[in-house]
Formats: sequence, C-alpha cells, structure tokens
Amino acid sequence: MLDTVTTALDWLGIVVFAVTGALVASRKQMDVVGFVMLGTATGIGGGTLRDVLMGAPVFWTRAPAYLVVCAAVSVVVFFTAHLPQSRHRILLWLDAVGLALFAVTGAEAALRAGAGAIVAAAMGVITATFGGVIRDILGGESPVILSREIYATAALAGAVTFTGLTLAGAPRDVSVGAGFA
Amino acid sequence: MLDTVTTALDWLGIVVFAVTGALVASRKQMDVVGFVMLGTATGIGGGTLRDVLMGAPVFWTRAPAYLVVCAAVSVVVFFTAHLPQSRHRILLWLDAVGLALFAVTGAEAALRAGAGAIVAAAMGVITATFGGVIRDILGGESPVILSREIYATAALAGAVTFTGLTLAGAPRDVSVGAGFA
Amino acid sequence: MLDTVTTALDWLGIVVFAVTGALVASRKQMDVVGFVMLGTATGIGGGTLRDVLMGAPVFWTRAPAYLVVCAAVSVVVFFTAHLPQSRHRILLWLDAVGLALFAVTGAEAALRAGAGAIVAAAMGVITATFGGVIRDILGGESPVILSREIYATAALAGAVTFTGLTLAGAPRDVSVGAGFA
Repeated sequence: MLDTVTTALDWLGIVVFAVTGALVASRKQMDVVGFVMLGTATGIGGGTLRDVLMGAPVFWTRAPAYLVVCAAVSVVVFFTAHLPQSRHRILLWLDAVGLALFAVTGAEAALRAGAGAIVAAAMGVITATFGGVIRDILGGESPVILSREIYATAALAGAVTFTGLTLAGAPRDVSVGAGFA
Repeated sequence: MLDTVTTALDWLGIVVFAVTGALVASRKQMDVVGFVMLGTATGIGGGTLRDVLMGAPVFWTRAPAYLVVCAAVSVVVFFTAHLPQSRHRILLWLDAVGLALFAVTGAEAALRAGAGAIVAAAMGVITATFGGVIRDILGGESPVILSREIYATAALAGAVTFTGLTLAGAPRDVSVGAGFA
Repeated sequence: MLDTVTTALDWLGIVVFAVTGALVASRKQMDVVGFVMLGTATGIGGGTLRDVLMGAPVFWTRAPAYLVVCAAVSVVVFFTAHLPQSRHRILLWLDAVGLALFAVTGAEAALRAGAGAIVAAAMGVITATFGGVIRDILGGESPVILSREIYATAALAGAVTFTGLTLAGAPRDVSVGAGFA
C-alpha cells in the first residue's frame, strides 16, 4: 500500500511540474509544441538526472506513459492557460508543491537504490530542483535557484527530514508526512 | 547498405551542427579554441544525451574520430567564417538540416536499442534539439527552443513520421526519406 | 605514492571550485543554502559529467565525503566572503588553479578507464570546464566559455600535454608537473 502512495506522489509531482513548465511556455507565448516540450522536460527532468547519476535506467525510457501524461497535461494547459487571472502566483504555488513531493520521492528512490543518507538527501534536492532549472533555462529565464533559493532550502529540509526519519526506522507514512512539513 | 546510409546521415548531421556551433563562436568573436569547443559540443551534444538517457555507451568515447572531425570542421570555419555575407542565414538553414537528420537518426538509434515508439520519437527530438541548446547556452544566447520552436515542431514531426513508418514495416529508405519531408 | 598525489590534486581541485561557486553565491547575495548548492554543484560538476560520459559510477555517490567537504567549504566562505577586498580577482585566480588541476586529473581518470589519447584529452577539458559552466548558469551569469575562453585554451593545453607525456611513457610526476605548466 505504501508503494502505491509513493508512486502516486511521484506521479503527482510530475504532473505538477509539467503544469509549471507549460505555464512558462504560456508566458513566453510559445506554440503547442513548445508547451509539450517545456512541460515534458520540466516534469521528467529531475527524476531523469537522479537516475543518470545513480546509474539506474532512466525511468521514462521503460514507461512511455510518463511522456504521454506530461504531453497531455501540457496540451490541457495550452487550451486553458488564458483562463486563470494570476498565472504567476499559480506557478509559484505549484512549484513549491512539486518541490516538496520530489524531495521526498527522490530521496526515497536513492535510499531504495542503496545510497547512504547524505547521498539520498542530495538526490532528493537534485530531483526536486533540476526540473525547474531546465524549465527556466529552456524558457530563457534566470534559473530559480538564483532568485528563489528559499525553495532550495525547503527541498533540502524536506529531503533531510525524510531521510533521517526513514533511517531512524520510522514507518514510511510518518516520514513522508514529515518530509512535507 | 542501409546501415551505411544511416551512418552517413549521422556524420552529416554532426558536421552540420559542428558548423553551426563554430558560426556562433564566430559571432561571439571567440578564439580558435572557442570555435573547437563550441563546434564539438554542438556536433556531439544531441547524440551524447541520447546515449546517456538510453544507458548506452556514449558513441564518441569509443570512436575519437567524431571529436577529431568536429574539431577539424570548427578550425575550417575559423579560417573561412568571414567570407560569406550572411552568416546568420546560413546558420538557420544548417540548423534546420541538422535537425531533420538527427530527428531520424536519433529515433532509429533508440528503436535499435529496443525502445518503444513513443520513447524513440522522444529520443529523436532530444537528439535533434539538444546540440543547439548546448550551443546557445555556452554561446550566451537565448536557447533556440524559446524563439524558434518551429524547429522543435519540425523535429517532432520528422521523428514521429520516421518511427511510425518504421514500426509499420516500411522499408527503411522510405521511412528515412519521409522523416525529412 | 603517486596515487596519493593524484587523489590530493583531485580533492584540491574540488575544494578550489567549491570556493569559486560559493564566491558567485556571495556576489548574488544568496542565503547559506544557496552557497552550499552552488559551491557543491561547482565542486563536483566536472567530475560528475566525466563519470556519466565514461559510463562509470559517479564518484560522489559512493563517497559522500565529497558532498560534505563541498558543503563545509561553502559554509566557511559564507561566513568569510565579506573579508577579502577583491573577491572577483580571487575567483579568477582560483578558477585558473582549479582548471589546471582538473585538466590533469580528468585526463588521468579517463586514461585509467581505458580511454584513448584523444578521448582522455577531451575528458580533461570537460572535467576542467563543466563545473564553472554549471556555476555560471545557476548563478545567472554568462558562461565563462563565452568571455574567458583563454581558460579553455589553458585546460586544453594542460590535458593534451599530460596525456601526451603519459602515453609516451613519462613518469607520472613529470607528466603531472608538465600538465600544469
């Protein structure tokens, strides 16, 4: 059951980041292919770098559903992004949610792959921040790390909390919950 | 014989992208080492990311001829880039040619490595676009994806067409030809 | 004994680059987490890309001490960066030292992994330059390669000299010394 929870959190993080990527494409007035590329790169970017660094197979090369969902989410944003009044506030809020999710799932993936506590926490931070870095570079904006390092702080705190609790033997649902707080 | 065709297309794409990288170095008035680094990174960048993501050995680590040719092409551009009247138009044209070539050869490399249709199409797009992204980041320009996503659209169309035809059992030369159109 | 020398040079290069990353964080007035992230990414970035391209396990995933040292160095810089009068001159000088160190240790790591001369020289250049590229991208500055390609020239010269001497059978300490000159 907990595996299902983790998988669900991972999917949620990917969808949330895909939306933020598509929102940046919207701000830059790209066409629908720009939405799909930026949304997909943002959604899968963090987990991709984590897998490459851990020497694991990149998760979406075996499960194309990730690509399909990211593309579909981006297309939905393409047709609805003009509706909300304040896209930028939504983007910041979703970014924070995605960071919290990926800090936990990234650290857990590293722990399961046999990494130690410090490396696992670093992987949590990398998974949480890299998608946004790709998005900002491809979108021609200053990377978030420059102007919003408060988010990196949050990602680090979440990853460290989660890793510490897990290694201390805490039940995973407690750790996951604490990693968000 | 068809393998020879694919290899030739791959080399052609690498040379074309190396020229575009060297042309950006020329616009930035770099020295000859800047030409070599930007030309080589642009020429091999897309295929490098494709190989890393597929978990395959990076192609040029086993065949240094790729590095030598990229460097040689960049040096040639260094000594001739002042000759043409309109470097920017040449760059845009070569970029489009390189994208079409790499969209096809990237998708084919992924198919041969056992990837499914969607992943293969994504690899075609990644191979085709990433060299230019590296070039623009290292050259201090806005990434192409921002301002010229028409090219990403073309790369996606080429990769999807090629992958679809190949999986449908079309002879490869037909698929390769259609992937360019 | 020479292995100890190489390891010491590698550590020295990592620390030097971590300091330059933290100095950029200082110029951008980031908080302490920004220092740690930029310092760590700069310190381990070049070696990380080298390992990924060579298909080797990424060095710091097995030895978290690298992460800890980079973070500690960054924290020290956070508390002392306001002291020196000319941070920018220090940064340029350290950058040159780190480049020379990594050009040699990067080429040697590739040679030991079985790479040929040309690939080894390329890996020396990549190891030496990529940390600084990451630092400048994350810090929102123009990548060094654009404005300071004199450093890339130096890295290339160092890597080529070292590789050539090593393959010619020169004792390693001679090659290491010459690679710096």
